[in-house]
Amino acid sequence: MSISIAYLGPPGTYTEAATLAYARDLPSETGSQPLLCPCPSIAQTIRSVAQEQAHLAVIPVENSIEGSVAVTLDTLWQLDTLQIQQAIVLPIRHALLSQALSLEPIKTVYSHPHALAQCQKWLENCLPNAQLVPTRSTTEALQYLDQDHTAAVITSQRAAQLYNLPVLASAINDYPDNSTRFWVLGKQPSTGGSHTSLAFSLPANKPGALVTPLQVFAARGINMSRIESRPTKRSLGEYLFFIDLEANAQEAFVQAALSELASHTEILKIFGSYRVLAIESPDVGQE
Amino acid sequence: MSISIAYLGPPGTYTEAATLAYARDLPSETGSQPLLCPCPSIAQTIRSVAQEQAHLAVIPVENSIEGSVAVTLDTLWQLDTLQIQQAIVLPIRHALLSQALSLEPIKTVYSHPHALAQCQKWLENCLPNAQLVPTRSTTEALQYLDQDHTAAVITSQRAAQLYNLPVLASAINDYPDNSTRFWVLGKQPSTGGSHTSLAFSLPANKPGALVTPLQVFAARGINMSRIESRPTKRSLGEYLFFIDLEANAQEAFVQAALSELASHTEILKIFGSYRVLAIESPDVGQE
Repeated sequence: MSISIAYLGPPGTYTEAATLAYARDLPSETGSQPLLCPCPSIAQTIRSVAQEQAHLAVIPVENSIEGSVAVTLDTLWQLDTLQIQQAIVLPIRHALLSQALSLEPIKTVYSHPHALAQCQKWLENCLPNAQLVPTRSTTEALQYLDQDHTAAVITSQRAAQLYNLPVLASAINDYPDNSTRFWVLGKQPSTGGSHTSLAFSLPANKPGALVTPLQVFAARGINMSRIESRPTKRSLGEYLFFIDLEANAQEAFVQAALSELASHTEILKIFGSYRVLAIESPDVGQE
Repeated sequence: MSISIAYLGPPGTYTEAATLAYARDLPSETGSQPLLCPCPSIAQTIRSVAQEQAHLAVIPVENSIEGSVAVTLDTLWQLDTLQIQQAIVLPIRHALLSQALSLEPIKTVYSHPHALAQCQKWLENCLPNAQLVPTRSTTEALQYLDQDHTAAVITSQRAAQLYNLPVLASAINDYPDNSTRFWVLGKQPSTGGSHTSLAFSLPANKPGALVTPLQVFAARGINMSRIESRPTKRSLGEYLFFIDLEANAQEAFVQAALSELASHTEILKIFGSYRVLAIESPDVGQE
């Protein structure tokens, strides 16, 4: 039986590029080609694994410009059954697609709000009068191009190729070092690796009490590569903390830190230890 | 001369409700009625004060369900000239507006992505087949209602009254304790109050080095009511940290903490000390 991988679709999204890179990197002994299943939202992608409609889910976690993808963190916290199997880091290069022959006639630019935000300065300089219209994915926006030659879409080079659409401008993202981190989620226990992710709430609802949990790691020389707060949704000012460690939870001193951490937290969820796959070219999957 | 206050418009947004509550709370000796100026985006609202087109800007900072408003934090960090004059906490109650007489004919629901997310469960239960379409503000979506009787919009009760539109369902937010915090920004030095906000980057680009700055406050018994990380936008894994303290920077021991903090940070920006205005009813400004 081949592995089925749900991802935030439709085909042509950056998540699909990350999923293709992951699939290509799978050990060949897994046998047949994995089956890629596009899902319409991040929450549905994750739930398709929780409900055993797919073996794995690939979803974005964090972009170097826009920051965390809140729905990913919130959904992972709500579901208790998923572990991180791997992280994937993909460089992001946005292109402007349009049926127009030049920038001049363009009146409307469609894209996912994050992609619009990542090209904000380019848009202000090159298309100052265009109306910016948010869509649910960079690919969903493509439907507007066929009918309307005053419309443009910000999406990947891969989408241009996949849907046979003309590229009017390339690499239009304001920051050249734009990259996105993805997680591969599954129900299997994670097998270990360079990074460990976890999240917790604090008993007294005092973010001031955050110092003690962080000291647990500092005292053992465990580096925290990221901390992110999310609201508990109970009331304003109550937070969950999501932490990534540069450490493998299968090592004894890390396990000791996690045991001590549990005594300082209200609810502690450990999402597993995993390796990070860094993709060098943004054009993965363009063959 | 009356005070001009820029806010995230158009009229009918929750930010307008917060702005009206703030204006009503101003000391009467300020004389004439403040002039309220709606702006089309958060970045433009903040910039209108930086560029001295308005005296004050009211913008959302954080919602109890959706978390931080990233563009607010990013823009405040980029501009060096603004101080927080006050915080406003407003309860949020979403309503469904439509020309339809019942939920049955509704095919499309328009709103700001945060409002759609805050009513996600209600939408899944009551309108499982409706298409959800993001707009730039809860009020902008209202333009679709006149033409299309299969359209609905999620917005405030105030917008219903202001634009004379029928309310089909009230208080449809999934979490009853939904509230949003706003900041009033201006160029005057802040005058002190119960809360202090600041942000910093770390010299070694090691989020693991975050413990030392936090200990500066913990050692003095200064409670941190919030910590939020944002990407520096230089490269994935480099962060700025935004912190709110329950303390007044005009007090000597807080000043000592901030001086010590400066020795542990790369860039430190202090956005001022201010008081918090808590609004009890979500229907402010509905007169």
